Amino acid sequence: MSAAIKTKPDLPDRIDAANAYAIEMLFSVDPVLEGVQRALDVIPGMTPSTILHAGPPISWGRMCDPMKRAVRGAIIFEGLVKNPSEAERMILENRIILSPNHHHDCVGPMTGIISASMPVVVTKDLTTERRAYSTFNEGGGQVLWFGSFGDETLQRLRWIRDKFAPVMKKVLERTGPISVWNILSQGIQMGDECHNRHGASTSIFLKNITEPLFSLNISHSSATAVYRFMSANSHFFLNFTMTGCKLAADAAHDIPDSTLVTAMSRNGTTFGIRVSGLGNSWFVAKSPYLEDALYNLGYGPKDAAPDIGDSSIIETTGLGGFAIAAAPSMASFAGGGFSDAVEITKSMNVITTSRNTRFAIPSLDFQGTPTGIDIRKVVDTAILPSINSAIVHKSSGAGQIGAGIAKAPYECFEKALLAFGKRHGLAA
Amino acid sequence: MSAAIKTKPDLPDRIDAANAYAIEMLFSVDPVLEGVQRALDVIPGMTPSTILHAGPPISWGRMCDPMKRAVRGAIIFEGLVKNPSEAERMILENRIILSPNHHHDCVGPMTGIISASMPVVVTKDLTTERRAYSTFNEGGGQVLWFGSFGDETLQRLRWIRDKFAPVMKKVLERTGPISVWNILSQGIQMGDECHNRHGASTSIFLKNITEPLFSLNISHSSATAVYRFMSANSHFFLNFTMTGCKLAADAAHDIPDSTLVTAMSRNGTTFGIRVSGLGNSWFVAKSPYLEDALYNLGYGPKDAAPDIGDSSIIETTGLGGFAIAAAPSMASFAGGGFSDAVEITKSMNVITTSRNTRFAIPSLDFQGTPTGIDIRKVVDTAILPSINSAIVHKSSGAGQIGAGIAKAPYECFEKALLAFGKRHGLAA
Repeated sequence: MSAAIKTKPDLPDRIDAANAYAIEMLFSVDPVLEGVQRALDVIPGMTPSTILHAGPPISWGRMCDPMKRAVRGAIIFEGLVKNPSEAERMILENRIILSPNHHHDCVGPMTGIISASMPVVVTKDLTTERRAYSTFNEGGGQVLWFGSFGDETLQRLRWIRDKFAPVMKKVLERTGPISVWNILSQGIQMGDECHNRHGASTSIFLKNITEPLFSLNISHSSATAVYRFMSANSHFFLNFTMTGCKLAADAAHDIPDSTLVTAMSRNGTTFGIRVSGLGNSWFVAKSPYLEDALYNLGYGPKDAAPDIGDSSIIETTGLGGFAIAAAPSMASFAGGGFSDAVEITKSMNVITTSRNTRFAIPSLDFQGTPTGIDIRKVVDTAILPSINSAIVHKSSGAGQIGAGIAKAPYECFEKALLAFGKRHGLAA
Repeated sequence: MSAAIKTKPDLPDRIDAANAYAIEMLFSVDPVLEGVQRALDVIPGMTPSTILHAGPPISWGRMCDPMKRAVRGAIIFEGLVKNPSEAERMILENRIILSPNHHHDCVGPMTGIISASMPVVVTKDLTTERRAYSTFNEGGGQVLWFGSFGDETLQRLRWIRDKFAPVMKKVLERTGPISVWNILSQGIQMGDECHNRHGASTSIFLKNITEPLFSLNISHSSATAVYRFMSANSHFFLNFTMTGCKLAADAAHDIPDSTLVTAMSRNGTTFGIRVSGLGNSWFVAKSPYLEDALYNLGYGPKDAAPDIGDSSIIETTGLGGFAIAAAPSMASFAGGGFSDAVEITKSMNVITTSRNTRFAIPSLDFQGTPTGIDIRKVVDTAILPSINSAIVHKSSGAGQIGAGIAKAPYECFEKALLAFGKRHGLAA
């Protein structure tokens, strides 16, 4: 199909120009954390019985076990039912609307569940004035985002809603808008690839909000509990990164002749991509298992669910796996060394159109991160986008059991390129 | 002389064994921040009229201008006189004792001035139970450590003594001992080489003390002022690193047959080294100018004082310039790139005996930092220890005007090796 495109003499030039425009739009985005709201009050299309989830659209029946657990948990959290079996019945009676985050200006890591009464951070792009939403990261343990649910989960979610979020709302009112790129561009100088490593970014964020937090007219113990919740979770900034990347990718979306990927996302069953010039269609394939991974003690590949989460929006905009040379620990984690990390980033240069100089990789002499995946390049080279990811247990509800590297399925890019060719009047 | 050593058949083996022992002693040190005290109360040999300074011993007449400014400033801070000319007279009348930090279990960055009423952090080695001392880092602006003095300096020093230190004393009582190596080993994963870059280490330290600080029974505004002072200074952890390195180097000192360097230090006039097997003698040469440096706008090499400070105790123990491959920004700062940073670290491997696996350099596949400078290797190869450093104005009192890389003078190592040979009955 890449070859076929060349049979229409003006098309390759139009594609290149459209891609150049799309990447400029992506680079122009300047996301800031603006505030904290209730999901129901701000997320477009949200209803009291809607449960948003990660990845492309999927029916209840085809959802993987960890996502099902998280959906049932969210329904209980909303007070719609008392236990998982009641939740299941409600879903089977079609009284719950299941819908992908991406269709509601949202993103969520792993299962990515968002329900009506959950507090969300509102991230605004100062350039386009669009907004994106995500929950606050729950941290470790028995947590919804890793498809684990129980009393502990419920207690934490309630605390986040009733105690944590109101405090964070006040904090952001006091700090004013906090720039996501500003924090990530520092983070990438400090060993974060801004997906699986967010330790530096989280620390920098904490530094930004500590004074305002502890200056609020609230008790020491409240402020301390809020601080401790964030400082104990080196992934706390992850969800904020995702909202920034969502805004960046969406700014590059819907440019008619562009072949740039504007979303990669997985629901644990299917992996889907969207392409700028192909509207809101998802091009899906089976979600892959992680290729290189490190498992927690007692777990192995046989326990793993397929790859899951909206967090690959980070790779879609050139961070995470694409920036892994900035975080060699991620490569060593997956059994490789520094040179493997550098090779991954270099190979991502082959399938992208630009480098984002805002994010400078120290060990590559401050070269920008490879950004703007072109479906033509993926199909022509068969180099697959490399995604830093985590692994959840496929059936036990144990939550996270490992982390490593996943590769986006070739099939998604092939299907997208065929659709692109069709739209432009080319035969397969 | 290196060749002459080989004429005594058993000597090279004895040296190697002594060096291996010395490096084990160095590695065994486990420094923790233990508390805050008044310099006069804890520093051995301190008196109300003593001013401690960086580098080898030096008379008032030979001190460089920035160090003189800082000494006069400290005398005023102590309330002994009212103005710089009175301070100068007091010195000329021999009513002030000038003594090197290193002779009092102390270290200080740049001018390194410590006077009797200054608060100092007490760092204890859990292994040997020795202690080392340093002031709290003053940060930027008109500050004593950069040889700049005025009303602003005096106000800040008083605030540090009267407000900041009492709070920090309580904070450390609450946290208990804080491990210096633990913080630095994380910092080196996050782009710190632990000398000119301390941004990550400072953030990690802050994370350790934020909750205790804001839980103290003091006003919000006091806690916030203390927090702000530290969070605004990415070098805040520097002085703590230096005390840890001082303890490590001192643990390797005084092993009769060892040729390991146990101190490198500069007073802005002379550069001196100490060697484990050569007692407390300093082997000195003229302090060098920085070879590669970046100057603040409006300043250049003609404005620079020679290299100054005890902070090269950091390189003495294998961090800073020796670990620069972990912080390529430092090399780019000095006009080089990532490969230059890697080359510097690799060349430091040539003149050292070991690698400190506690400090793993990510981009070198987590190789440990080159540690334990052997004077024989420096003399034989003429590869000079590379020191990440800052530059102060030579005469105007402007304070810091740049930063870059200095090389330890060959002459120091040559003199030391001659002394070593002499002690072991060898002719030059």
